[in-house]
Amino acid sequence: MTIGGDAPVSVQSMTSTHTCDVDATIQQIHNLARAGADLVRVAVPGRADTEALRRIIPAVPVPIIADVHFEIQRALEAVEAGAAKIRLNPGTLSDQSKALTVIAACKERGVPIRIGVNEGSAVDRYDAAKRSQHEQLLAGDRRTGLVRIMVDRLAEYVRLFEKQGFSDLVLAAKSPDPLIVIDAYHTLSQTFDYPLHLGVTHAGPPSTGRIRSIAALSALLADGIGDTVRISYAADPVLEVEDAVELLQCLGLRARRKPELIACPTCGRIEVDLLSIVEQVRERLEEIDAPIKVAVMGCVVNGPGEAEGANVALFAGKGKAVICVDGKQVRTVDEAEMLDALMDEVRRYASRG
Amino acid sequence: MTIGGDAPVSVQSMTSTHTCDVDATIQQIHNLARAGADLVRVAVPGRADTEALRRIIPAVPVPIIADVHFEIQRALEAVEAGAAKIRLNPGTLSDQSKALTVIAACKERGVPIRIGVNEGSAVDRYDAAKRSQHEQLLAGDRRTGLVRIMVDRLAEYVRLFEKQGFSDLVLAAKSPDPLIVIDAYHTLSQTFDYPLHLGVTHAGPPSTGRIRSIAALSALLADGIGDTVRISYAADPVLEVEDAVELLQCLGLRARRKPELIACPTCGRIEVDLLSIVEQVRERLEEIDAPIKVAVMGCVVNGPGEAEGANVALFAGKGKAVICVDGKQVRTVDEAEMLDALMDEVRRYASRG
Repeated sequence: MTIGGDAPVSVQSMTSTHTCDVDATIQQIHNLARAGADLVRVAVPGRADTEALRRIIPAVPVPIIADVHFEIQRALEAVEAGAAKIRLNPGTLSDQSKALTVIAACKERGVPIRIGVNEGSAVDRYDAAKRSQHEQLLAGDRRTGLVRIMVDRLAEYVRLFEKQGFSDLVLAAKSPDPLIVIDAYHTLSQTFDYPLHLGVTHAGPPSTGRIRSIAALSALLADGIGDTVRISYAADPVLEVEDAVELLQCLGLRARRKPELIACPTCGRIEVDLLSIVEQVRERLEEIDAPIKVAVMGCVVNGPGEAEGANVALFAGKGKAVICVDGKQVRTVDEAEMLDALMDEVRRYASRG
Repeated sequence: MTIGGDAPVSVQSMTSTHTCDVDATIQQIHNLARAGADLVRVAVPGRADTEALRRIIPAVPVPIIADVHFEIQRALEAVEAGAAKIRLNPGTLSDQSKALTVIAACKERGVPIRIGVNEGSAVDRYDAAKRSQHEQLLAGDRRTGLVRIMVDRLAEYVRLFEKQGFSDLVLAAKSPDPLIVIDAYHTLSQTFDYPLHLGVTHAGPPSTGRIRSIAALSALLADGIGDTVRISYAADPVLEVEDAVELLQCLGLRARRKPELIACPTCGRIEVDLLSIVEQVRERLEEIDAPIKVAVMGCVVNGPGEAEGANVALFAGKGKAVICVDGKQVRTVDEAEMLDALMDEVRRYASRG
């Protein structure tokens, strides 16, 4: 697969299993792929994990990225084991001679490398002069300082790679703060010509992390920035993939395969228990594998026009319901039959293809 | 309160009670205000609803907007009853002589008017010539056509209002499709100098509507577009307000009053049941009324730097946990005591003010 250029924006996730637990890792990668992940990253903290890659990679339907965090030796092993891409952080790159070995190995095999500088690893921990320079930058406006540090560090690594004639790079500069993410990637897209991997890091559980993640990614994707995305939740990673896929679909960056449900928010004009009807429709639509737009409205008075471009729409009123297809009224039924009637029309519409 | 100009972006919601059910409506408005709504809209389909406004308005802590959908007479009654703002749609404005009466009444009392054209009410239903022109526009690229129709219709109403010397307007052009919303509001912000009310209409239940809504609103707010926002879910409207407030906080458009929880997404390096720890921390943080950034990390190896600017951070490892305050390690405790120790530090930090 291709990241960047004219390729579609791809969805990534990362396994939460121990990679050396081969069966569990393969199972989770299958779950992620089924949810729509185009590529999956796995952590390789130990030798047993890179060894496990040899069994995992042939058994899964998506390319595998090896996430190397501490020991750069793991990157060499992962390349040997057939990883499709390597992710390195500033920590692993601090030993320049080892970094050169990895660059050479990846170049030889055509394996791309992502360099990811997170807010948390932005300040240099190894070089005292740089550290003091970074701390000075943070003493001013913290957000501006962090963006500057992250972009500068990436520029430094990019130079190191380019000097070796290596240009198969993907860049990332993540933070838990959507404002830093938006600012950093705008700067990256103006500074570099490499594909960008978008993400809000450490976003927390979906209940608190979803809005933060979608806010940052949408602001960037809507401006045409971003070639691959990862949403990170402290949760089952399948949820990350589902939300990332939904975001790309919302922004017209990925074709829908399932129905889209729209519903009026209910108001003082309502005459039915719309929330319960919506929930029932949502459940029944799960069986449909077609990108149909279905509307459920709690008010018949405004007529078909209000169904907002829905393919099939249900207008529920007092005891009766009207069903419209492509804006034209096709049936009026009793309330008791409305869900069956709606699903009949949805299935008929879906079978038209 | 002020909408537009340099005023902060405000959060709106709409009651789902029957407005004439005064007690239920007052109760819901209080719930919405407590969740962070700056103003609340109520539907006034009948005479009993505008009458109810006389008892509702003095009993609630936020300005009330009357949503007039069918009979423009309701707008006059709502102004009489003390509504802070009126929302009109193209349908109500089709009778121009009545529209002029409402404009005069609002002008006399200094009541602003929002004109909202939704995708569903974009195509003219009253004027055959306009209808045919609109249908022609839709026959090309549907999204582009819809944006053009919505903006043109708003321009027509704006001229009608301006001819009466009325400029206290707020404009809206909603759709369930985030791409149409993003495009429409970009065009509105280039075309008009009036405050804009942002929203994705008929977004469905939060499970399917949240991403769509946040995606559109974030893309616009991040570009500086939008003066007041409403998220519409087919659900308890308190959820709309909570999500809108969270979005504004994420984008730095509203100050936080509660802790912000960040957490690592877990990976193959993890040694503890982080998801359960995160959930427990989330529950315990509910008692804290201070905008502290709290991090929960499942890996001690990366050290304090990885806590991404958190004020108080917990690093959970095998049997032991490290607690850091502003990036400095302050305590190492046994796993059994780590939540109590974390909360001690959080409370201490909060009390510093």
